[in-house]
Amino acid sequence: MALIVHKYGGTSMGSTERIANVAKRVAKWARAGHQMVVVPSAMSGETNRLLGLAKELAPARQDASYLRELDMLASTGEQVSVGLLAIALQAEGVPAVSYAGWQVPIKTSNAYTKARIDSIDDRKVRADLAAGKVVIITGFQGVDAGGNVTTLGRGGSDTSAVAVAAALKADECLIYTDVDGVYTTDPRVVPEARRLQTVSFEEMLEMASLGSKVLQIRSVEFAGKYKVPMRVLSSFTPWDIDINEEAKSGTLITFEEDEQMEQAVVSGIAFNRDEAKISVLGVPDTPGIAFQILGAVADANIEVDVIIQNLSKDGKTDFSFTVHRNDYARAMDLLKEKVLPALGAAEVVGDTRICKVSIVGIGMRSHVGVASKMFRVLAEEGINIQMISTSEIKTSVVIDEKYMELAVRALHRAFGLDQASA
Amino acid sequence: MALIVHKYGGTSMGSTERIANVAKRVAKWARAGHQMVVVPSAMSGETNRLLGLAKELAPARQDASYLRELDMLASTGEQVSVGLLAIALQAEGVPAVSYAGWQVPIKTSNAYTKARIDSIDDRKVRADLAAGKVVIITGFQGVDAGGNVTTLGRGGSDTSAVAVAAALKADECLIYTDVDGVYTTDPRVVPEARRLQTVSFEEMLEMASLGSKVLQIRSVEFAGKYKVPMRVLSSFTPWDIDINEEAKSGTLITFEEDEQMEQAVVSGIAFNRDEAKISVLGVPDTPGIAFQILGAVADANIEVDVIIQNLSKDGKTDFSFTVHRNDYARAMDLLKEKVLPALGAAEVVGDTRICKVSIVGIGMRSHVGVASKMFRVLAEEGINIQMISTSEIKTSVVIDEKYMELAVRALHRAFGLDQASA
Repeated sequence: MALIVHKYGGTSMGSTERIANVAKRVAKWARAGHQMVVVPSAMSGETNRLLGLAKELAPARQDASYLRELDMLASTGEQVSVGLLAIALQAEGVPAVSYAGWQVPIKTSNAYTKARIDSIDDRKVRADLAAGKVVIITGFQGVDAGGNVTTLGRGGSDTSAVAVAAALKADECLIYTDVDGVYTTDPRVVPEARRLQTVSFEEMLEMASLGSKVLQIRSVEFAGKYKVPMRVLSSFTPWDIDINEEAKSGTLITFEEDEQMEQAVVSGIAFNRDEAKISVLGVPDTPGIAFQILGAVADANIEVDVIIQNLSKDGKTDFSFTVHRNDYARAMDLLKEKVLPALGAAEVVGDTRICKVSIVGIGMRSHVGVASKMFRVLAEEGINIQMISTSEIKTSVVIDEKYMELAVRALHRAFGLDQASA
Repeated sequence: MALIVHKYGGTSMGSTERIANVAKRVAKWARAGHQMVVVPSAMSGETNRLLGLAKELAPARQDASYLRELDMLASTGEQVSVGLLAIALQAEGVPAVSYAGWQVPIKTSNAYTKARIDSIDDRKVRADLAAGKVVIITGFQGVDAGGNVTTLGRGGSDTSAVAVAAALKADECLIYTDVDGVYTTDPRVVPEARRLQTVSFEEMLEMASLGSKVLQIRSVEFAGKYKVPMRVLSSFTPWDIDINEEAKSGTLITFEEDEQMEQAVVSGIAFNRDEAKISVLGVPDTPGIAFQILGAVADANIEVDVIIQNLSKDGKTDFSFTVHRNDYARAMDLLKEKVLPALGAAEVVGDTRICKVSIVGIGMRSHVGVASKMFRVLAEEGINIQMISTSEIKTSVVIDEKYMELAVRALHRAFGLDQASA
């Protein structure tokens, strides 16, 4: 008997028919003798519907009194889900009880719409589990010290599930999603991509931050911090699939560097084309330049990813960075109108037709020459590298977006990730 | 400056456009210097939509664990309303904050789906009012001693509003609804019906219990118990109607028997055709008969209204009562299959084509002959009376439903309620 946390996304909860299937799946786990906690998202489309109503009433603002009301509103979506799922489980003959975030309580900071979980009281949940009940807890939300409802931001239900699993010291947190695991790269780009049986949480963290949509990055951070074994698996298997088979499906995110993981130097190839490159040319090479440029960008609430400063030449340097494409126009305007005049820089140039490709692998720590192999593979394909950024377990390059598929496929093959080579 | 509670029904909150109008009306009252508390219902249709989802998942049950989840589900409708109304008020430039029942808290019994309010903590609300904020509180719901969400049952938002007004010792509780006040009878039946400027809470109580749909009866009881001045008025007037005119519109439900009320012996004619008559004939006239019959009916959760036991003849008596038409078939089956054999009674007969007509008036206390005048008026119209039931301030008769309009019009005229005679 184990204590298991299941998390179901909005698609899995998208209709009463699907909720009934979730209930049947959870009931199967409960009948197998496990103590079950379930964290469902709002029914798909519901959060957007609610926030859409708010937008019809007033333009969005950033003050706390407005954001507080958005959280009051948006948090109802998950409350509906937990009530319905409890009813569906009871209809299966399985005792079940639902809790909103404030009832557990899941205590958070008071940063409305993007709160952080501070603590989770496990007493009610443990008492219910001991009484043989399935406990269903709203994802995405909590309550601050003042008793106000808070939400964790988009995708926060993954984080809720992992946090609940950590608080309960659950044996495993199963994230049911619309993919059947974590792949060496996107199978739509590389048909030879393989599903990973296991992936280290650090690799998962890099893949998530590099645009892999499988898991919300905060949930992976949380899992890492509290060493919660976490499995990503498909919610599209039939609910009555054999439980032992289901328990081994998907991808397990682990915290122990076992031998299997040591074998592969590179675990996956991540990529995204959501970014745009901006270069400030002819910047006087004096202390504080980076802050002057990036400080202004940060003040405008624009997130910066890769940052490169070239070697200085004649007291001038070039400074490049990438931002999300949605922020590109705003960042360019800001730099041209405010930063450039203040800096006395020569020019700002930008390029939205770039992509970022990364190799990720915990084995890179102990293997030299991995980055240079990446550069060689790209050179052999005639792909010019525009920017390079490295961390302990990943190497990223920014290239022309037209070469993205070519680069990903070549690297996938070169690092032995193709199915044939497995 | 007064402390005013506004209550808006589901129709008034039925779309973002209507919510924006509610916000404008409340803002007008706030700008006039009043401290404002608003209790809105769920958007029209929302509670039914939510309960419909539950029905798709499982047949309704009566156990607490199921009803608890229904309350988790249904209570979200009002939470959406308060969040949206707060956003709309803020957009009007009026500081506003919303609270769910558990946040105030509004403490209730743990009778899910029909909880009773035990207490309301006014501290948060008073602090917000003192800080110049409009406070918006969910209707229909509260929290029990165990921290579970409860609802007060259909129409419970009226009760919430009155209870909040009582806890805050509000100067007046304004119930905005789709009628413009309380009438001497239904204007659709009697075009000469007049709107009452004032009505005593006891008369209102009788009218509500007699099928007048203006106010939920529990809210009137609550208002009576705590002497909350309560006004029923139209939510269909333009929001920018002059505030002094608006403050005097509708019907005020009062607790003082002023002279004006003494003038009218009968204040209104109530009626309903929701009931059916059941008679158990040839019942042995022994002690405990009423309990044997009605006990079985009550155990089946069927509410009984008028009850008549005829004089005994040859040791046998007839026993008649009315039930809601929806319960008629069930009650008849129950009596035929279980009660009749046990009693040794001769026969059960029923009639669904009846109606109940009542005259209501606080003046009846001190005026004799009011009931007999009613019987005379009906006799003059050739209407046979099947059952009679009386209380201190009302007399009800059960008659053939085909005479309903005729009876109501004749009584309305005879007791001087027609507009021409006002």
